[in-house]
Amino acid sequence: MSSRRNFLQQTALGLAGSVTIPLLGKSAIRQSAEKWVPDHETPLKVGVAGYTFAKFDLDTSIAMMKRLGIHNLSVKEIHLPLNSSQETINAALAKFAAADINVYTVGVIYMKTREAVDQAFAYARKVGVNMIVGAPSYDVLDYAEEKVKEYDMKLAIHNHGPEDKLYPGPKDVYDRIKNKDARMGLCIDIGHATRAGVAVDKAVKEYKDRLFELHIKDVSKAEKDGKAIEIGRGVINFPALVASLKKIRYTGVCSIEYEKDMSDPMPGIAESLGFFKGVMAGEG
Amino acid sequence: MSSRRNFLQQTALGLAGSVTIPLLGKSAIRQSAEKWVPDHETPLKVGVAGYTFAKFDLDTSIAMMKRLGIHNLSVKEIHLPLNSSQETINAALAKFAAADINVYTVGVIYMKTREAVDQAFAYARKVGVNMIVGAPSYDVLDYAEEKVKEYDMKLAIHNHGPEDKLYPGPKDVYDRIKNKDARMGLCIDIGHATRAGVAVDKAVKEYKDRLFELHIKDVSKAEKDGKAIEIGRGVINFPALVASLKKIRYTGVCSIEYEKDMSDPMPGIAESLGFFKGVMAGEG
Repeated sequence: MSSRRNFLQQTALGLAGSVTIPLLGKSAIRQSAEKWVPDHETPLKVGVAGYTFAKFDLDTSIAMMKRLGIHNLSVKEIHLPLNSSQETINAALAKFAAADINVYTVGVIYMKTREAVDQAFAYARKVGVNMIVGAPSYDVLDYAEEKVKEYDMKLAIHNHGPEDKLYPGPKDVYDRIKNKDARMGLCIDIGHATRAGVAVDKAVKEYKDRLFELHIKDVSKAEKDGKAIEIGRGVINFPALVASLKKIRYTGVCSIEYEKDMSDPMPGIAESLGFFKGVMAGEG
Repeated sequence: MSSRRNFLQQTALGLAGSVTIPLLGKSAIRQSAEKWVPDHETPLKVGVAGYTFAKFDLDTSIAMMKRLGIHNLSVKEIHLPLNSSQETINAALAKFAAADINVYTVGVIYMKTREAVDQAFAYARKVGVNMIVGAPSYDVLDYAEEKVKEYDMKLAIHNHGPEDKLYPGPKDVYDRIKNKDARMGLCIDIGHATRAGVAVDKAVKEYKDRLFELHIKDVSKAEKDGKAIEIGRGVINFPALVASLKKIRYTGVCSIEYEKDMSDPMPGIAESLGFFKGVMAGEG
């Protein structure tokens, strides 16, 4: 109840347009698991990455999240453009709040220039989050680190699989940020990581000190041409992943990013959500 | 692969209209779990109860099952009327076979008269199954037992919750059949049983010697007015249920019967399916 109160407070303040210091800490991330595993001590938080709803407008996306009972969103610029005014952002946040949806991060935001880095951090502050999920080009990494310090904001760098010239897997991220500010870390996209040959249950342990965010999904093969598929139907070992996340006491969100049947994604998202919750309940 | 071959063989024979001895044994029930828990020794079989698709015609129901990846169906008379000719039944079985769907039982069939019992058994034989899920009135139970012997066919009696005058919970079934032929047993509807105050993880153990079938679902409350809800969102302890089913080495099917949002059930069925599979994987 107190998390919900924090969240509503944060949102209400955000709506007043006067909040520049992010108030959204870990405690404000809603424990959406609370209903279905009443005796579970440390449930992992489940959310959704906004790209999942790429084919739908904001209102439809909210309605879909409501039906799914998902309360944590990584908002994507498709639904809330990077150049939005504070007024536009507040209007969107009001809609999310009315649907009991907590916007806990923004992204994935690609940053190839200093201007893009500036825009991303300004946007994140306006949205009221304390973390950006992003993919900065190598030559703006130092500049991004400056902004991380200036804004006191985390930057979780997202890996995008074998095709990605910058960050195919989590190690490619980790090696570039391990000596930088501790607020620079990883958003492990477990599908792309698996396609890059990474055992994600081991990766989350290996990079636990910098693991801020997870994009969860499944893939048909642990190879470059593996396709997006409903969680539980593919090759990723979710029981092992969940066990690892519990072992490292992961406090971030596990955000479903569903990229199959994107014009009619509800059954696939629902199955994915159910499977992940079921694994957590079974592992509990 | 061999189960699939048996199944196709059975269907092909069924299509020829010459099969009266049920060929469909346990081995013909497709291990639909095989894809997602490759190292799982004894996965529970997942299916669907036809009533789930009450608002849809046969072809649409098949398309929905295909998308869900569900391969075991308890066919309901809504989709295949009890008075169907062998020809009509064969045409439907051909459609199921083309979609890789195994009709492993029929029901729930209500039987208030001897004629209804006769019809149910004749229908089941024409469909080619070795089990009926039914609800015979008390005064035709002895007659149903005669038919069980005559047809060498199992009868799994379904409980329907506190409102049910005949079989509110599994004990009401068990007490009436425990001294009858061993082919008379239970289809525990875990939602209705929960509403009747039954701890279903214990009930499956208690009645294991006569447990032939399960209708799986979730309910919002363990009280009479509990409502149907997505599996995982309600009060039923699925990890405990799955653990019990593994302990008793349950070889029947766990058939999802989803009764919420029946005009737009896909997200709810998918979430339910995902959750149940996830619990099994997590418990594995």
